[in-house]
Amino acid sequence: MRPRALLFDVFGTLVDWRGSLIAAGERTGVEVDWPAVVDDWRRAYLPALERVRTGRTWRDFDSIHHETLSDVLQRHHLDLPPETRDRLVRGWRELRPWPDVQPGLLALRERYVTATLSNGHVALLVDLLRYGDLRVDAVLSAELAESYKPDPRVYLHGAELLRLPAAEVGMVAAHAWDLREPAALGMRPVFVRRPDEWGGAPVNEPPTELAGLVVVGSLAELAELGELG
Amino acid sequence: MRPRALLFDVFGTLVDWRGSLIAAGERTGVEVDWPAVVDDWRRAYLPALERVRTGRTWRDFDSIHHETLSDVLQRHHLDLPPETRDRLVRGWRELRPWPDVQPGLLALRERYVTATLSNGHVALLVDLLRYGDLRVDAVLSAELAESYKPDPRVYLHGAELLRLPAAEVGMVAAHAWDLREPAALGMRPVFVRRPDEWGGAPVNEPPTELAGLVVVGSLAELAELGELG
Repeated sequence: MRPRALLFDVFGTLVDWRGSLIAAGERTGVEVDWPAVVDDWRRAYLPALERVRTGRTWRDFDSIHHETLSDVLQRHHLDLPPETRDRLVRGWRELRPWPDVQPGLLALRERYVTATLSNGHVALLVDLLRYGDLRVDAVLSAELAESYKPDPRVYLHGAELLRLPAAEVGMVAAHAWDLREPAALGMRPVFVRRPDEWGGAPVNEPPTELAGLVVVGSLAELAELGELG
Repeated sequence: MRPRALLFDVFGTLVDWRGSLIAAGERTGVEVDWPAVVDDWRRAYLPALERVRTGRTWRDFDSIHHETLSDVLQRHHLDLPPETRDRLVRGWRELRPWPDVQPGLLALRERYVTATLSNGHVALLVDLLRYGDLRVDAVLSAELAESYKPDPRVYLHGAELLRLPAAEVGMVAAHAWDLREPAALGMRPVFVRRPDEWGGAPVNEPPTELAGLVVVGSLAELAELGELG
């Protein structure tokens, strides 16, 4: 079975959250080590999602980002007014796509049904895709399964909404943790190298243990591969 | 409050189901009064949705269309092989957009967040939008609320996914029955005249009793109105 649809992770895979948020921080005029603040903010993300996943009440990215930003600012001994915090949280809607993404998604749409499958909620993704002029066939989100990746229900729900068996779906991500569950479910794992996601720190290594793993350096390279056999 | 997002009904409002399905029927080579069969098929749709809405198990359009097609063929004393029935049901994914729709949606995207809000399920809408090269910001469906329009939960769920209050949402449809509930919820009702939906039969009249009703002849005309005050 060949993939007929590709599901794309968004933060880090399609867009450069780090560079964009550092720039947003600097635009506030507050003098602080913005790269350190932004990196800590993002590091707080997976543990925060884990708490939501194991808790009772689903909450969206805006709510989580407000909470984790408060913690991070406290650790950096920074006090920012509410409107500056709001502006930073809104910054997650204005993230620059990596340069290959806009044309790469268009090329991949010629061959595959394309959809996001992000932990960001639908409203945030809509704003983000509009900001970067990114075109996909559907905006799917962990929100629609009321959970967060890597909960297998999120990936299965994405395939179910497209009425495709897992074997006809490819999951595209720059993070090993986002490919192991889909691969275990029978989806095709596609790893995109994003060496600059953390400003050059060597954190994104492909999960080479996964059978059938495809590793590419850009969405253009993925489109040029032709059909994934 | 002005609408920041427009939700679009699809069948009849964006695409010409009747002309497209009659052509699909004629392509099967079976000689029968296809306009009559197709009209009866569509007439069976709202009662079938009503049965699903009031029943226990949500079912998608493909399932409903198979069932209603069987009934209609029986009434027309027609027996078609399963593969022909499948082809006709798949025909709901290959419906021609009205001529103003492709450019009209692009123009409206400049000003509004745009999304479908259709009784068709997500997978069907994805195929249909690809077929017509129609671009919207999000593919929303009654499926996501596990109900069918005009259940108010479907409209509210659409607004909730976009994180907008009802007053900032416009519902665009060619059918009065699809505008009354959203208007009652505080959404702005926008009626698009589609005089050819039923081959010229005068069935689509605007619900002029609704406060704030906007009536247009095409999406281009809606885009030219500027901000809905």
